[in-house]
Amino acid sequence: MSTVSCCHRMHSRSCYMILTLAILCNCVVLFYLVHKQNDIEVRESGPQRNELQRNLNNLAISYASQNPVVSAFEGEVTIVIIEFEMFENDIPGTVRSILKVFPLIRIIIVSHKRPYPPLDLPNDNVQLVLQDTPVDQRQSTGRPENYINTPYVMVVPDGTRFMTNYLPNNVLKTLKKLEKTSVKIVAVPVESRVKTQCDNLKVDLKRWTMEYSASVNQSGNFKLCGFISPDPVVILKSAFLHSLSVPYVRPFLQGLFIQASVHHILTKLLYMKSFSKGTELFTNPHNQWKHDRNFRKRLIDLYKRFGIKKIVTTTGKIEWFGCNRDTQRCFGTVVDDIPEYIYLSKWTPPCCLKNLRETAKYVFQLLDQSNVKYWLEGGSLLGAARYKDIIPWDYDVDIGILRDDVKKCQFLQKADDLSRTGSKFVDSSGFVWEKAREGDFFRVQYSQFNHLHVDIFPFYERNGIMTKNTWFKTHRQDTEFPAHFLKPLTRIEFVGIRASAPNSVKEFLEYKFGKGVIENPQYPNAEKLKKKLSLNQQYKIAKIGS
Amino acid sequence: MSTVSCCHRMHSRSCYMILTLAILCNCVVLFYLVHKQNDIEVRESGPQRNELQRNLNNLAISYASQNPVVSAFEGEVTIVIIEFEMFENDIPGTVRSILKVFPLIRIIIVSHKRPYPPLDLPNDNVQLVLQDTPVDQRQSTGRPENYINTPYVMVVPDGTRFMTNYLPNNVLKTLKKLEKTSVKIVAVPVESRVKTQCDNLKVDLKRWTMEYSASVNQSGNFKLCGFISPDPVVILKSAFLHSLSVPYVRPFLQGLFIQASVHHILTKLLYMKSFSKGTELFTNPHNQWKHDRNFRKRLIDLYKRFGIKKIVTTTGKIEWFGCNRDTQRCFGTVVDDIPEYIYLSKWTPPCCLKNLRETAKYVFQLLDQSNVKYWLEGGSLLGAARYKDIIPWDYDVDIGILRDDVKKCQFLQKADDLSRTGSKFVDSSGFVWEKAREGDFFRVQYSQFNHLHVDIFPFYERNGIMTKNTWFKTHRQDTEFPAHFLKPLTRIEFVGIRASAPNSVKEFLEYKFGKGVIENPQYPNAEKLKKKLSLNQQYKIAKIGS
Repeated sequence: MSTVSCCHRMHSRSCYMILTLAILCNCVVLFYLVHKQNDIEVRESGPQRNELQRNLNNLAISYASQNPVVSAFEGEVTIVIIEFEMFENDIPGTVRSILKVFPLIRIIIVSHKRPYPPLDLPNDNVQLVLQDTPVDQRQSTGRPENYINTPYVMVVPDGTRFMTNYLPNNVLKTLKKLEKTSVKIVAVPVESRVKTQCDNLKVDLKRWTMEYSASVNQSGNFKLCGFISPDPVVILKSAFLHSLSVPYVRPFLQGLFIQASVHHILTKLLYMKSFSKGTELFTNPHNQWKHDRNFRKRLIDLYKRFGIKKIVTTTGKIEWFGCNRDTQRCFGTVVDDIPEYIYLSKWTPPCCLKNLRETAKYVFQLLDQSNVKYWLEGGSLLGAARYKDIIPWDYDVDIGILRDDVKKCQFLQKADDLSRTGSKFVDSSGFVWEKAREGDFFRVQYSQFNHLHVDIFPFYERNGIMTKNTWFKTHRQDTEFPAHFLKPLTRIEFVGIRASAPNSVKEFLEYKFGKGVIENPQYPNAEKLKKKLSLNQQYKIAKIGS
Repeated sequence: MSTVSCCHRMHSRSCYMILTLAILCNCVVLFYLVHKQNDIEVRESGPQRNELQRNLNNLAISYASQNPVVSAFEGEVTIVIIEFEMFENDIPGTVRSILKVFPLIRIIIVSHKRPYPPLDLPNDNVQLVLQDTPVDQRQSTGRPENYINTPYVMVVPDGTRFMTNYLPNNVLKTLKKLEKTSVKIVAVPVESRVKTQCDNLKVDLKRWTMEYSASVNQSGNFKLCGFISPDPVVILKSAFLHSLSVPYVRPFLQGLFIQASVHHILTKLLYMKSFSKGTELFTNPHNQWKHDRNFRKRLIDLYKRFGIKKIVTTTGKIEWFGCNRDTQRCFGTVVDDIPEYIYLSKWTPPCCLKNLRETAKYVFQLLDQSNVKYWLEGGSLLGAARYKDIIPWDYDVDIGILRDDVKKCQFLQKADDLSRTGSKFVDSSGFVWEKAREGDFFRVQYSQFNHLHVDIFPFYERNGIMTKNTWFKTHRQDTEFPAHFLKPLTRIEFVGIRASAPNSVKEFLEYKFGKGVIENPQYPNAEKLKKKLSLNQQYKIAKIGS
């Protein structure tokens, strides 16, 4: 306003011209910028722009013709349906019930393959997104996030019914109030014969482990949960969902809750209310079986993708999804003494630790029975001293024996005999025995398929020094040592039993590894590892001690 | 300039103030817009912005300190390395050779898993992109396109050496000249003992088929190709690469050439020049075997992903990647007579047509030998009249026989006998015979696993009319018909043999299906299909007649 009055006091014509020019100039720049921005959008995510347009249109219609509560919800929330079976589902009923309450809401149905038989869907508002983009389509068409322009996403289980707009709106309101807390998901159960379960969930990626625990009694009409079953309706910020590693993975809620737990994000469960349910699914036992089988397969793939190998249930039961006797070991050949998992910021898979313990106990028992004197060596003794267990990132167990004792144990003797032909043998318990030709040591493998192992190094005494004929040059701890450490042998707690060990464990370990080795844990081949990591910051390792 | 002079002629102080205000206002709006645009970028593709910044920085350094040809290339091209084995590769050598020529170029190494043992990479300029995003990372970090801000991408095979900037620059120049033609990729061979092969490639998605053919002799120092082997260096527009269905699939060049062919895009091969090669890879036969095995596995996955089941090589040899006797049929249970592939815009998988033909010929021969009178029925007779073959989107073969002839054929008789117990049997050639209890017809399946089949309907004559006891109510063609059509039977060409058929084939077909049925091909259950498609435009079917 002051500019206008100011103009009157001047040669107004020239001044207007200048202002007009300036404004025109503005317009050109603005037009250019807006245009450029549109360009980016089109390039980045083809479908998104059309969707935006459509959403705006819908919003316009919505505001013009409808209940403002309904319109507001339609403008803020996209419905996603991802969890359903092709052979039996209630998608058409679910979609129609939602559209009855929110006629202009955008609904996205996410599927890897085009559903067959075809879903009977209304054309408007409903978008089928095929994650395995057909070869003649752009990759952007297969990404659900490209069809979502609302700030919130509500993920709805197959078979849910929307009866009024009250409950969905309430859920949205609840979520909005939680902004800036660590609760970023709000869930409401769907009517079910099964009681809604709210558990805590702790994911420890470093240890490949996931642990459920019963959530403590919480009063009021909500609970905070890490995991909820059976599948509830959930609402969350689109931006949060799309910031996850695999937002649209199946089983969806398992994937969401696990990923949320990784980021210490909780879900608020409004358990006093519930959504209605339409048709009961899988009443036919064959279809229930098919569904269970599919679900299980997806779940196993999910655990594999997320690196979960051990699951502790609320009752303390352990489920394993890692290697076992009949599969290969979880990690491949170890290069430079640094196993692959170290570079993945992880420690030894828990199944491997378990199987290693089993192998070690078997070997110790056998040697004890045969009166073969053995003692924990290197990293295994270090683990015993430090943790009474295998070092959490170690990948084998090492022990020493007296060379003259080999003949006392039939399996060692047999492996020795077979070594001339380069062959090995499987004992009656399924363990594999061999004598390595290069290293002059024995190896007991967990099974024919799973190469987890205990290495047995035969020493002999010479002038009061325990020695052997071949050495691993890169292992500082692989050295001679005074025989007095074995006179007498002692026992130390290890992998749940009392294993045989040298006397003066601390002195022995410091003799082999150096001063302070027990107190200062380090990764194997620490110097090489440090050098590698400093050269290549693309690899990160897990902190010891957390 | 005129504004300045104009200002001198006025109350200059006020005028300046107004202009300053206007400009300030501009600045605020501009700042807001730029900021908003950045916001979008950050939200859409977190890594991209940093990359952009870095690229700009690099460009700045580059322009300041370097050869302008080198700098220009660095600013326009991102190098991608995706095709390599973890167990043996020459990535460090390749990367270093590229950085020697283009010190500031951005290099992206794409891999599903973190390479182990770790790649020895320089930290700057080189970005490792893990497509299977670790669970604690954002999904955007696993998408190579988010790290590419240059208009062009050069994809380099493992082991390539850049000796000078001349050749890479030349390739870029060549590509730039092709703008607006259907040639959107330029390729240069890498030095090799194997001669560079340039083939035409035709992909027919509807028929699940891919056909190579030798490219005709082209003169000059380039060729236009659909497929090039062994792996060349290729350059293409980033936007083109990212518009594909699966840009970063492996084997990369096979994936690229097939997807390009789907869009009728050609590659210009500059075959008079070649890039140098570093270390020869896989000289150890075990590693060569491992590489071949991995490559084959990836290739089979690629064909599956792209829906390629039949490949015709340049020599005319056919390779099958679809179902066979020992696998399940390519398509599942058919619902409403409309098989799944129809909704995928596809026709019957060629392996299924081949296996159906084989089954039909086997059955016809057997019936002929047993003196059982049979005739082509329904869709099979229609196919014979129209194409001398199975209709290209049909999924079984139907024939009629005289009910009284069943006892003449031991397999039919045995199937009849077994039908009381609801069981079937496998004949000595591996085909499975059964009598359907519900439909009162016989079915001969291709194998125990593969349920492709010939259906045999037993008719009998009553008052000059051929009839049977049960009917498929939804099939118009499944009707009684005058016996004179079988007196006498004739022969018609079908699946490569002369099969038995009713006389007056055209009249017979029009009697069963209606007027003009031979001339006007339609999908099965065409009305239901039309209704379904009109209700749901998310499903599209392939045009008949192309």
